[in-house]
Amino acid sequence: MDFILGIDGGGTSCRAALAMPDGRVLARASSGAANIRTDLTNARTHIVEAAQRAFTEAGHDPGLVARTPAVLGLAGANVGTYRQQLQAILPFRESQVESDAEIALEGAVGSGDGAIAVLGTGSAYRVRRGGVSRPIGGWGFQVGDQASGARIGRDLLEQTLLAYDGICEASPLTREIMAVFRDNPEDVVEFTVAAKPGDYGGFAPKVFEHAAQGDAVARHIVSKAVADVEAALGALDLRDGDVLCLLGGLAGLYAPLLAPRYRALLGQPQGDALSGAVRMAARFFGTAAAEAVDG
Amino acid sequence: MDFILGIDGGGTSCRAALAMPDGRVLARASSGAANIRTDLTNARTHIVEAAQRAFTEAGHDPGLVARTPAVLGLAGANVGTYRQQLQAILPFRESQVESDAEIALEGAVGSGDGAIAVLGTGSAYRVRRGGVSRPIGGWGFQVGDQASGARIGRDLLEQTLLAYDGICEASPLTREIMAVFRDNPEDVVEFTVAAKPGDYGGFAPKVFEHAAQGDAVARHIVSKAVADVEAALGALDLRDGDVLCLLGGLAGLYAPLLAPRYRALLGQPQGDALSGAVRMAARFFGTAAAEAVDG
Repeated sequence: MDFILGIDGGGTSCRAALAMPDGRVLARASSGAANIRTDLTNARTHIVEAAQRAFTEAGHDPGLVARTPAVLGLAGANVGTYRQQLQAILPFRESQVESDAEIALEGAVGSGDGAIAVLGTGSAYRVRRGGVSRPIGGWGFQVGDQASGARIGRDLLEQTLLAYDGICEASPLTREIMAVFRDNPEDVVEFTVAAKPGDYGGFAPKVFEHAAQGDAVARHIVSKAVADVEAALGALDLRDGDVLCLLGGLAGLYAPLLAPRYRALLGQPQGDALSGAVRMAARFFGTAAAEAVDG
Repeated sequence: MDFILGIDGGGTSCRAALAMPDGRVLARASSGAANIRTDLTNARTHIVEAAQRAFTEAGHDPGLVARTPAVLGLAGANVGTYRQQLQAILPFRESQVESDAEIALEGAVGSGDGAIAVLGTGSAYRVRRGGVSRPIGGWGFQVGDQASGARIGRDLLEQTLLAYDGICEASPLTREIMAVFRDNPEDVVEFTVAAKPGDYGGFAPKVFEHAAQGDAVARHIVSKAVADVEAALGALDLRDGDVLCLLGGLAGLYAPLLAPRYRALLGQPQGDALSGAVRMAARFFGTAAAEAVDG
C-alpha cells in the first residue's frame, strides 16, 4: 500500500499531511519551525518529525517515510540553492520542493489558472496561467513586502515620531501609540532596535481599525497600502473571469477596500497551503500521475 | 597649569582635543569607536585613550586627565540612561556629556542662535534659540532618519525590486543596480539580510548623480527626500536672519536642491563637532566660565 505526503514548512511550525495516492488525507501532524534559510539541519529534523508523526497518527509505521514521495512547500525555497541543499538530505522516496507561495496557490485555486495575494506579516503574490506560475513581490521587510502588516506597523511608528517632532499632524492613533511607549520617543527607538517583522505587524490591525473610524494618519497609511496592493495586482495581468484569492491575516481587512474591478475577481480559497501540497503530491506521484502515464 | 578637553565620540572613532582654558587647541588625538549604547565599557576605554593621547601629543603627562574637565559629545547620549551611566565611570575632574548633535551645533554656529541639519548616513536636526536647544528627528534608520543616505539607499533597492517585478517603471539606474546584483533579486534580498545603514547609504551619491541626469526613479527618490528635509526644516521654525548649517556627507548634494527660503539661510559651519566640544568646555570650565564668575 502506497502513500503520499504533503508538507508545509514555515518559520514558526512545520505541518505534514499523510494521504492516499488519490489525495484523500489520512492524518495531519505538526512539529517545530522549518526555516531552511536560517537553519537547514533543524528544518530537516522538523520536516521528518512532522512526517513521521503523521504516519503514527494514522496508525502506520513511521519508518515508511523512506518509501513515500513528498511535495514540500517551504518559505525561502525560491532563494539561492537552499532547495537543492535540502533535497539532497531529505529521507523521502522522492522529494519535490516548492516555494510556500506555490503550494498556497495550488491550495487556493487548484491546478488551473488563478492568483493569490498573501497579505500577512509579509506580502507576496503569485499568478498561474496556462500552467505557468509566476511570483511577484515577497522580497522581505526591508525593501519589499509593501502593504504587509510589518510595513504598515513600521509606517505607523514613523508617522508617530514625525508627529511627535511636529513635522506631521498628530492624530488620535499617533497619540495612542506614543502613550504605548510612555510618551517617550526613545522607547520607540529602543523597540525598533530588536523588533522583528512580526513585532511591527502587531500594530497593523489597529491601523485598519482607526482608518475605518476616520483617523487621518491611519487613513493615509491604509490608502498607501491599498494602492501598493493594487499596483502589485496590476502586474499580475488578471483578466475577467480569473479567480483571485486573498490569503493571510490581513486578507479580510483588505478585501472590502480594493477597487471594484479586483473585488469582482475575489473568490474563497478551496483549501489551505497544506492541502495544496497534498494535491500536488497526488498530481506528481499519486493516482493522477499514474493515470497520466497509463493514458 | 590647567587644561580643558573636548571629546567627540561616535560609532567609528573617538576624537579628543586638549586645549587651554580659553579654548586654544594644543593637540588632537583619536582612538576607536565610542558607542555608549552598544558597548559602554569599551566606549569609556576609547574615550580615555583618546584623551591621554592628546596629552602625550602635546608633550604633557597623560595622567593629568584626572585633573582636567571635559565636554563630551556622544552619539546616543540623548537616549535612556546611557549619559548617567557613563558620567559615573569617567575619570575626568568633571564630565559634561552632551549629544553628538549638541556639540555639532556648537561647532557650526557657536553658542548663539542657529540650526543644523545633519545629512549623512543618518539624519538629524537641531535648533537653538535664546539659549534653548531643541532636537528634531534622528530616530534611526528603521522608523526615522528620513532623507538620510541609508533611507535613500533603501528606497533605491525597493524601487529596483518593484521595477524588476513590473510594478513600477524601470530606469537606467534601476537596471544598473540590478546588474550590480547579477540581475538576481534574491541577491538583493541576501544583501538586505545583513546590511547596516552605512551599507544602504553607500548607494546614495549614485542616486543624486542619476537624478541630476534626469533618471525618473532617482528624481522621484530625491524629490521625496528633499521634501522630507524641508518638512523637518519647517518644524525648526527658522526666521529671516537665522543661520542654518548643513552638515554630513550629503550636505553639499542637498544644498542646491532646497527651496530658496532655506537656501537664503545657509551658512558655512564655523568649525566641526570636536571644535564645538572644546568651545563648550571653555564656556563651562575655562576662561569664559571664570570671567562669568568674576564678572
